[in-house]
Amino acid sequence: MSTWMPDTDSRAGWLSDDEIRSVRAHLPVVYIDAVPVRVDGKGTVTEVGLLLAQAPDGTVARTTVSGRVLYGETLRESLLRHIEKDLGSLALPRIPASPSPFTVAEYFPDVTRTGYHDPRQHAVSLAFLVPMDGDCVPSQSAIDLAWVTPTEAVGHDVADAFAGGRDRLLRLALAHAGVLP
Amino acid sequence: MSTWMPDTDSRAGWLSDDEIRSVRAHLPVVYIDAVPVRVDGKGTVTEVGLLLAQAPDGTVARTTVSGRVLYGETLRESLLRHIEKDLGSLALPRIPASPSPFTVAEYFPDVTRTGYHDPRQHAVSLAFLVPMDGDCVPSQSAIDLAWVTPTEAVGHDVADAFAGGRDRLLRLALAHAGVLP
Amino acid sequence: MSTWMPDTDSRAGWLSDDEIRSVRAHLPVVYIDAVPVRVDGKGTVTEVGLLLAQAPDGTVARTTVSGRVLYGETLRESLLRHIEKDLGSLALPRIPASPSPFTVAEYFPDVTRTGYHDPRQHAVSLAFLVPMDGDCVPSQSAIDLAWVTPTEAVGHDVADAFAGGRDRLLRLALAHAGVLP
Amino acid sequence: MSTWMPDTDSRAGWLSDDEIRSVRAHLPVVYIDAVPVRVDGKGTVTEVGLLLAQAPDGTVARTTVSGRVLYGETLRESLLRHIEKDLGSLALPRIPASPSPFTVAEYFPDVTRTGYHDPRQHAVSLAFLVPMDGDCVPSQSAIDLAWVTPTEAVGHDVADAFAGGRDRLLRLALAHAGVLP
Repeated sequence: MSTWMPDTDSRAGWLSDDEIRSVRAHLPVVYIDAVPVRVDGKGTVTEVGLLLAQAPDGTVARTTVSGRVLYGETLRESLLRHIEKDLGSLALPRIPASPSPFTVAEYFPDVTRTGYHDPRQHAVSLAFLVPMDGDCVPSQSAIDLAWVTPTEAVGHDVADAFAGGRDRLLRLALAHAGVLP
Repeated sequence: MSTWMPDTDSRAGWLSDDEIRSVRAHLPVVYIDAVPVRVDGKGTVTEVGLLLAQAPDGTVARTTVSGRVLYGETLRESLLRHIEKDLGSLALPRIPASPSPFTVAEYFPDVTRTGYHDPRQHAVSLAFLVPMDGDCVPSQSAIDLAWVTPTEAVGHDVADAFAGGRDRLLRLALAHAGVLP
Repeated sequence: MSTWMPDTDSRAGWLSDDEIRSVRAHLPVVYIDAVPVRVDGKGTVTEVGLLLAQAPDGTVARTTVSGRVLYGETLRESLLRHIEKDLGSLALPRIPASPSPFTVAEYFPDVTRTGYHDPRQHAVSLAFLVPMDGDCVPSQSAIDLAWVTPTEAVGHDVADAFAGGRDRLLRLALAHAGVLP
Repeated sequence: MSTWMPDTDSRAGWLSDDEIRSVRAHLPVVYIDAVPVRVDGKGTVTEVGLLLAQAPDGTVARTTVSGRVLYGETLRESLLRHIEKDLGSLALPRIPASPSPFTVAEYFPDVTRTGYHDPRQHAVSLAFLVPMDGDCVPSQSAIDLAWVTPTEAVGHDVADAFAGGRDRLLRLALAHAGVLP
């Protein structure tokens, strides 16, 4: 099972690849995670979107929308950018009105530290549940997008396909929405 | 300044007016409060909707969307019903995905108890921030609806026009969304 | 498996048993649920307290601290009263500073409605995670109190021993604290 | 009025002063803010702790407990470290059980961006309300600590004495606890 994070933006953010590598060895990096969902007219979560993406090392795993916050970028701008990058420009995300994430995932190179794991860096990721109103089309690094029910999302076959502890992030998102089975 | 609650549903909920009065003297009643807002494409709250409504005693005051939860009704159904009743059927509310309210307002006949006041009853109200995507038209007991900025919403002239402590509820809603000035 | 709620306070709250039964057929009733936990010096939840209690019909089941909010009683007072009743006067609970519950459990006589079930009534329960600093001694209707790890708490043998859907409430509490496995 | 952030840890975190300056020009930095409070037995916030601290440029301003999260450090460890540094080792903080901050403050060199301002860097700060059970003694960079009521805390004379927009952070903390006047 792979443990990479899907979006590293190593070409962006005004730092070279070498510089990013250097910083990552010395400072925690700010990330966002977004769990895309479908909701009905009463706001109840009916489906969760699971991304499938390929890591630099060639392995493929289930993941959330995830990526680095750039210098000068607000969290809301970063959420929009990463959602558009992974799900296309017609996804019509409802970025939450509250800036408070439903949880904070702390990714460490040491997998035993928190259960959230990234071999490259210490990342502090603010995780949001984001209802989608439009058409979500997997794009760029995303290979596939599957919509599943909350019950399917917590099944063992799905959970095992996730990387870096994001299956737990998914369960926490469902719990936040009151629909964890 | 009036202190009534705008929606009592005394004709509904399968209890007569007399029975409702009797229950209200013995049990806390479940309520919802909804603060209608406009958000931009990044989810930032840009405007707050202030209702103007007439109380049974003839006074008029600023208020939120507010009302009783009926027997057998879920909170989500109650939110939808009260929003449609006050803002019309084209308001297109985004009921939050999380069932957790941003605050709980405890209304007491004794105004000194919590600052939230209802002379008729002890009501426990779950308060939600609800972005509106559609056209909001004041209807039924609502006389007027004004959209104001967060800064205008916390001005003294607006705050003083609220009844029952709901000006505070409005400030808590704005704080939850990170836009309290 | 039993589905009763552990505390009905039918003798209290200034209503006779007959009156309570009548009201319960017509109005949702305000409840609180408290999930007792132990935390370490960094605030991380290390253990969850599981109550064992006997229902009026003689069955015994795992449960949370749970009970009705009385007329004139604030939620904080109700939390303190029910915790003291079930866990004794030396439990030293840390009632949360925020009035917002981690979730709202809507109990219905119809078990298919929300998954939270009470055959006697429609109850709207505000659920809180409450760290305990003192000695918890099961008292009154509580037969036993067991402290288990988050991993043990979500095991199937524990989950099956709960009544009324409160095993789900427990998982949501652990998710809120970031320690759901 | 000064706009510095009180704790920069430039000597720590395994980076030289020059390196920290360089990184700050290219990456958002992870921070925590802690608002110390006193609570009564029911969990209600009764007082807020206001720090007075001196900035590198010699100016003095009101502030929260605030500082950088180091590489390899969890948020909980960082909260404990900064609280101990500013309030002493006998402060006995109740670090919240939930990892979700009550708000996220995004500090930018450009004061018009979010209202939270730091001339040196783009910092993303997770803000927590932290009840204190012990003796708080201002230490290290903290000159003074004043305990005030929520009403006093939002008075204009107090608000004007804060730097970097932290008076707003304080109001959001009080709103989260339901005690914003």
